[in-house]
Amino acid sequence: MKITKNYDLLRNALHQRRQKLASLINFPAILWSGRSIPRNYPALTYPFRASSHFLYFAGLPLENAAIRLESGKLELFLDDADPSSTLWHGEMPKRAEIAELIGADAAFPMSELKSRGMGAATIALQDSLIRLQQSDILVACGAGRDRPLAPSKSPTGIDLELTHAVVSLRLSHDAASLVELRQAAAVTVAAHKAGMAATRTAKIEAGIRAAMESVIISENMTCAYPSIVTVHGEVLHSEHYHHPLQTGDLLLADVGAETSMGWAADVTRTWPVSGKFSPTQRAIYDVVLAAHDTCIDKISPGVEYQDIHLLAARIMAEGLVDLGILRGNVDELVEMDAHALFFVHGIGHLIGLDVHDMEDLGDLAGYEEGRTRSSRFGLGFLRLNRVLRPGMLVSIEPGFYQVPAILNNPETRAKYKDFVKWDELEKFADVRGIRIEDDILVTEGGREVLTGELPTKALEIEELVAVSA
Amino acid sequence: MKITKNYDLLRNALHQRRQKLASLINFPAILWSGRSIPRNYPALTYPFRASSHFLYFAGLPLENAAIRLESGKLELFLDDADPSSTLWHGEMPKRAEIAELIGADAAFPMSELKSRGMGAATIALQDSLIRLQQSDILVACGAGRDRPLAPSKSPTGIDLELTHAVVSLRLSHDAASLVELRQAAAVTVAAHKAGMAATRTAKIEAGIRAAMESVIISENMTCAYPSIVTVHGEVLHSEHYHHPLQTGDLLLADVGAETSMGWAADVTRTWPVSGKFSPTQRAIYDVVLAAHDTCIDKISPGVEYQDIHLLAARIMAEGLVDLGILRGNVDELVEMDAHALFFVHGIGHLIGLDVHDMEDLGDLAGYEEGRTRSSRFGLGFLRLNRVLRPGMLVSIEPGFYQVPAILNNPETRAKYKDFVKWDELEKFADVRGIRIEDDILVTEGGREVLTGELPTKALEIEELVAVSA
Repeated sequence: MKITKNYDLLRNALHQRRQKLASLINFPAILWSGRSIPRNYPALTYPFRASSHFLYFAGLPLENAAIRLESGKLELFLDDADPSSTLWHGEMPKRAEIAELIGADAAFPMSELKSRGMGAATIALQDSLIRLQQSDILVACGAGRDRPLAPSKSPTGIDLELTHAVVSLRLSHDAASLVELRQAAAVTVAAHKAGMAATRTAKIEAGIRAAMESVIISENMTCAYPSIVTVHGEVLHSEHYHHPLQTGDLLLADVGAETSMGWAADVTRTWPVSGKFSPTQRAIYDVVLAAHDTCIDKISPGVEYQDIHLLAARIMAEGLVDLGILRGNVDELVEMDAHALFFVHGIGHLIGLDVHDMEDLGDLAGYEEGRTRSSRFGLGFLRLNRVLRPGMLVSIEPGFYQVPAILNNPETRAKYKDFVKWDELEKFADVRGIRIEDDILVTEGGREVLTGELPTKALEIEELVAVSA
Repeated sequence: MKITKNYDLLRNALHQRRQKLASLINFPAILWSGRSIPRNYPALTYPFRASSHFLYFAGLPLENAAIRLESGKLELFLDDADPSSTLWHGEMPKRAEIAELIGADAAFPMSELKSRGMGAATIALQDSLIRLQQSDILVACGAGRDRPLAPSKSPTGIDLELTHAVVSLRLSHDAASLVELRQAAAVTVAAHKAGMAATRTAKIEAGIRAAMESVIISENMTCAYPSIVTVHGEVLHSEHYHHPLQTGDLLLADVGAETSMGWAADVTRTWPVSGKFSPTQRAIYDVVLAAHDTCIDKISPGVEYQDIHLLAARIMAEGLVDLGILRGNVDELVEMDAHALFFVHGIGHLIGLDVHDMEDLGDLAGYEEGRTRSSRFGLGFLRLNRVLRPGMLVSIEPGFYQVPAILNNPETRAKYKDFVKWDELEKFADVRGIRIEDDILVTEGGREVLTGELPTKALEIEELVAVSA
């Protein structure tokens, strides 16, 4: 852990966050940070990632730690490193120093946790071993708990109350979060520019991925999620990087940085490997870009995010009608989810300490209380269904994809036979997948595109790719 | 998973490996591959890494799979991907195709595993959820098993027999492994050259790390272990990358690639940030290099690896006597572990599908049956204590470190007061940590340095750093 920066901002933010929490719940909360998880063997682990809920209230990515929050007070539970570990990991800051840095009111070894867990709520971690520890300690503390936290169960009782309170805080970013989120956005923008500039020299997708991630690594950040860098943009979460880059291909890159404190960015651009969009690629690209721009313009406090999704759907449908791919009345096409044959996912999601912020809570964060996922083909994938409020950070990421499993499905073909001009669509065979994604902060006055430094217009993209030629 | 290469070599190797296994055990073995482990939430996971034991006999990094080996036959257990996952992950090869690729004799859905587990041995995975699954299935199959596999327990009974058999196979690499190990070595060499060339332009350690890992990523490989790229080489497993690069610093880089099939390389070089070793740095560097070169020359079938460690200890002690840092008789200095004040770890370890190969088995792989770790300060860290045999791949990695926790310890100071010239040592304050590490294959005739393309001589290193100037 790096301790070199000014911690005043962080300490103040943590203080305010727990005061706000204290105004929402009247019982203690204990949050665990998690552990390094073995990859090959105990000493060879995946890079440690602290739980986002812990990070939000503790600020630092401390391993094997916990915090207890009650009435605005912060207690830190952490064991000092074994002296013998100094050889392998260097001098680590002591519990007392860390407590000072984050403004903890008290600090204890982990063994004290079980004597201070009475009546405490928690949020279950993903890691099953830590979840067992959470259960063990909280059950031992009594207070009506008689069941272990279950992996995929929704929280109940005070755990649910805590979850709602944490969600309400984390939904709106404060100044300290925004410092981090802006850093993640800036490095992500630089990574995408580097990716475009590497296109003409790279031989396979991995070459572009390397150029992009190299920027993130060199800034001492990590990737917020597994990078998607592919000429098969129609595979939404492709994690292959071995395909050759061929003239005529579009390259879709969905890559985002995460700061050392855990804050994410999430950006996608799509560009031509040759440096020049074909007319068909350009035509579809401009439809997607129109959806992107119009949706961003629509972001404002009080707006329903689902309406933005439906706006994107209409613009996509309209654009595809204009190109002769769809036929019919735009409203009816959207009503029957014809746009969703090509725009196969939601318009976006929350961004924060997780790239899909708080997705560990299922839809408790993404969906306003009382709302549930739609069973509609064109709405069920929407990850966010709330009224926008100042401080929310959301992605806007319209896309167009030709997914064989969808478009070649005989039932789909039959259902939409009067609305899709399949022969016209064939002319657009060189457009397998396009997505344009930015990160937008909802402000009092409207919006701010945190990743707005990265061009979106086709001509500007072409120029950035040409840099390397 | 990428399926583009010629699979004949792999299929033949897998066939031979299981024939050999069948000659060593007379009961079935079931090996699990593991699963993707959540990082932030279920859909955002760490990059999947299959269990090395599974990879050795199944060849491909299949998620949520298992294999059953009996009398030279291979059965694959794998569920075909849910059709709905095609949208997110693309068309996945079907169980039958994969079975064909790896030469399986039969293939079943995972649910069939419990009907075919009777009397089977296994090796426990690191992941606790999968370990639970292993226990559940094997206990359900009866055959005298009545206890779950424990996380840190040594295997017993047929599990121990299986482990010994697998170790004896994995100790000596076959032609198919060597193809992979050579690829990992070549990419690792290129990564180190890129790191050296980036030194003059990088501002912090992360900049050099980025240049090195970028080479690995661009070859569609991953890092075999968390990279160590630090001006604080005295912290053996430093995972910080934020320190500025300053004239006068030595940069220690321990970075290795892993192929997509899971085979590792492990290389360390140490170079001057300025492009030029200081006289004191050069003097110590040459002592470490002498140990490196002499130990490599000593590698041959029939040689005790521990003797190579002790040889390194003697060369280090001798060099430090010559430099006026130690005083006394070299053999006595080694006997009393005076070299280990500076050369604080073992001379190396096994390399294969894990960078410390089979370290998940504790010392069952590294130590010949009947041998255990020494309690001696200068020997206890040795990870490998076996007679070398053809086909073994080992690292040779002597080092010199000034670890404050060791050298400033009053007891140590008292114990070695007649043997360490502390005032002379102070002249070498600009040498915090040096390590030189290569990967050496034991051959019938002696040895082959798989990473030998990467220079080790101080002058050559200086030239590679100067490339960027």
